[in-house]
Amino acid sequence: MKFLHTADWHIGRRLHGFDLSDEQQNAFDQIEQIAQQEQVDGIIIAGDLYDRRLPAETSVAMVDEMLQKLNLTDHLPIYAISGNHDSATRLATGTPWFKATNLYLHTDLSQAFKPVEVGDTQLFLCPYFEPFDAQQYFNDKSLQHLDQAFARVVTEMKQQFDPAKKHVLVAHFFAAGSSTTDSETNLTVGGLAAVPTDLLADFDYVALGHLHVKDALQLPTARYSGSPVKFSLSEASQKKGVWLVDTDQTPVQLTFKAITPIHDVKQITGRFADLMATADDDNVNHEDYVGVTLTDRQPIPNVMARLRDVFPRIVTLGRTDGFEPQVGYQGESSQQIQQKSPMTLLGDFYEEVAKEPLSPQQEKWATAALKTAREEGEQA
Amino acid sequence: MKFLHTADWHIGRRLHGFDLSDEQQNAFDQIEQIAQQEQVDGIIIAGDLYDRRLPAETSVAMVDEMLQKLNLTDHLPIYAISGNHDSATRLATGTPWFKATNLYLHTDLSQAFKPVEVGDTQLFLCPYFEPFDAQQYFNDKSLQHLDQAFARVVTEMKQQFDPAKKHVLVAHFFAAGSSTTDSETNLTVGGLAAVPTDLLADFDYVALGHLHVKDALQLPTARYSGSPVKFSLSEASQKKGVWLVDTDQTPVQLTFKAITPIHDVKQITGRFADLMATADDDNVNHEDYVGVTLTDRQPIPNVMARLRDVFPRIVTLGRTDGFEPQVGYQGESSQQIQQKSPMTLLGDFYEEVAKEPLSPQQEKWATAALKTAREEGEQA
Repeated sequence: MKFLHTADWHIGRRLHGFDLSDEQQNAFDQIEQIAQQEQVDGIIIAGDLYDRRLPAETSVAMVDEMLQKLNLTDHLPIYAISGNHDSATRLATGTPWFKATNLYLHTDLSQAFKPVEVGDTQLFLCPYFEPFDAQQYFNDKSLQHLDQAFARVVTEMKQQFDPAKKHVLVAHFFAAGSSTTDSETNLTVGGLAAVPTDLLADFDYVALGHLHVKDALQLPTARYSGSPVKFSLSEASQKKGVWLVDTDQTPVQLTFKAITPIHDVKQITGRFADLMATADDDNVNHEDYVGVTLTDRQPIPNVMARLRDVFPRIVTLGRTDGFEPQVGYQGESSQQIQQKSPMTLLGDFYEEVAKEPLSPQQEKWATAALKTAREEGEQA
Repeated sequence: MKFLHTADWHIGRRLHGFDLSDEQQNAFDQIEQIAQQEQVDGIIIAGDLYDRRLPAETSVAMVDEMLQKLNLTDHLPIYAISGNHDSATRLATGTPWFKATNLYLHTDLSQAFKPVEVGDTQLFLCPYFEPFDAQQYFNDKSLQHLDQAFARVVTEMKQQFDPAKKHVLVAHFFAAGSSTTDSETNLTVGGLAAVPTDLLADFDYVALGHLHVKDALQLPTARYSGSPVKFSLSEASQKKGVWLVDTDQTPVQLTFKAITPIHDVKQITGRFADLMATADDDNVNHEDYVGVTLTDRQPIPNVMARLRDVFPRIVTLGRTDGFEPQVGYQGESSQQIQQKSPMTLLGDFYEEVAKEPLSPQQEKWATAALKTAREEGEQA
């Protein structure tokens, strides 16, 4: 069987305030196109369809439309789970009806143990869960940590294994490290509860969601698809796309299919003057989302607004070597400043920020407040 | 055909802070039972399934379970619309799949004009809409008011009428009054936009939602079902239930089926001592939600807590004749009070409310604040 593996759509996500719905729609359109061109037997979505547990109406409408398009219009089977960003309860609405058209969307741990049989493959759709959910399901208080709970989950799944079939797990968690010999030590990597990768060994393929970097795990039979869209500057250098998973090969054959963004996310570094001078350079894609790092050390008046003229989707601004901050009020020395009265300082500061002097009423309030503060200081 | 007509479930609603979910589940169970006993051909839900556009997860789970129970377990067809309390967008999730099991849930005006054909009956499911939605749908800016818009909607529906069949409209609005002869005057009743009832004349039955009182409209062929649960003290005297609608009769035959609450909502009036004396009286249902009106004129210390001992679900407390309020501080005359310094008054007041004196730090702050206030008063 041939599956398309995607995850972490995070519909509703914003990038430093920019609406990403056009990017997400564009990525979806490419996913749909890849699925059709490659004639896949189904689409795996490994959790985090939404960016938040309480999605906006526009996000709800968008996810609804995407699932309808793939499943009802294109007649593509869907094998999906809820992730930690989804509300399992909200995502569950309608799911009992969806199976009729081969849309499987598991949101409760109890659903993980009844595999969906697709040709020669058993798909175990394991929604995101907390150790507490496993404690409840197995009625076993000893499942205190994710690695313990997940080991138990895998044991339970293996009882459903049909030896004549391939076994694919769809799950949403942080997979890293290996089980320790000391059963008392519970696996955490970088402070995060992790599932040791040796627990994944009995599956022919593990389609993971949770991490947005496809290269976070490089095992031959377990992968993150990563998100289809870059959601932060830290993902600037990553390739986004989906996996094609051919379970007819042993081991499974994995092919990465790239997704091209409308506007890329990039880090650019340079002198302010040089960056501004690219304005007429057609080789520079000024419409990308850019994190700008300036190498200048001088103060640059109104720098953000001027950069935005050339790079309208600028998302962050930094300096490589720090910069000489525009301290002091109109170039005054710290000694000059120290000689000013608190009231004068306050007035100057207000004028600097508000571009207008304190009103007489404001001055009266400020005087009274400073007086109270001074008296309290004297009493203390 | 035989339909059960209900509406205004308002799942998630609270009564003066009391969780009503047990009441709502109990009412639902009775609705299900009536539908089965009467072997109805379908259940009409005329809007406001939820109490709010953004329902809590517990409410989502409850509505999901109710619809699944009726439709998937009991195999009862459902003919439902969104009301003004629902988010049409959120309620729309899954609806394209629901039709496969005869669950029709219309959330968009465009769906109102394609009747659902059920035996000898055409059901027009018209979701709650605003005049603006009608303007958009008909591309007609002249539809400024609800009565104009609704007239146009009905005209459009009538083009779909099969003369050999009965015509049932399911809708959610305030129906009252009649069309004026002056087309420039738009119907409002008590300040609310209303649909004139003569616009409903061409239907064999109009199953309405919106008003919670079943007797709000007494036409032979148009009714509100009312809410299945009392949602406020103003509904205390109402009978709650559902309509059975037999469209084989002309005019349709309407039978009201009552729903019995777990705890009723009641207004009780009496002297405090008399109400307290009912504590051991088994004829008084102390577990009801009660709005208490006392006829006493004396102050009664700790009155709410004492009443709650006997009536744990007390929701409001009032007096018939007003009462002599417990004014003054420990019985002091207003003259005595006027002679106190602001600081003493503040301290007395704080102690009265907080049951402890001002701390030294609080006293310091209060003194400074009063001083500032006094100085400002002098300057002003």
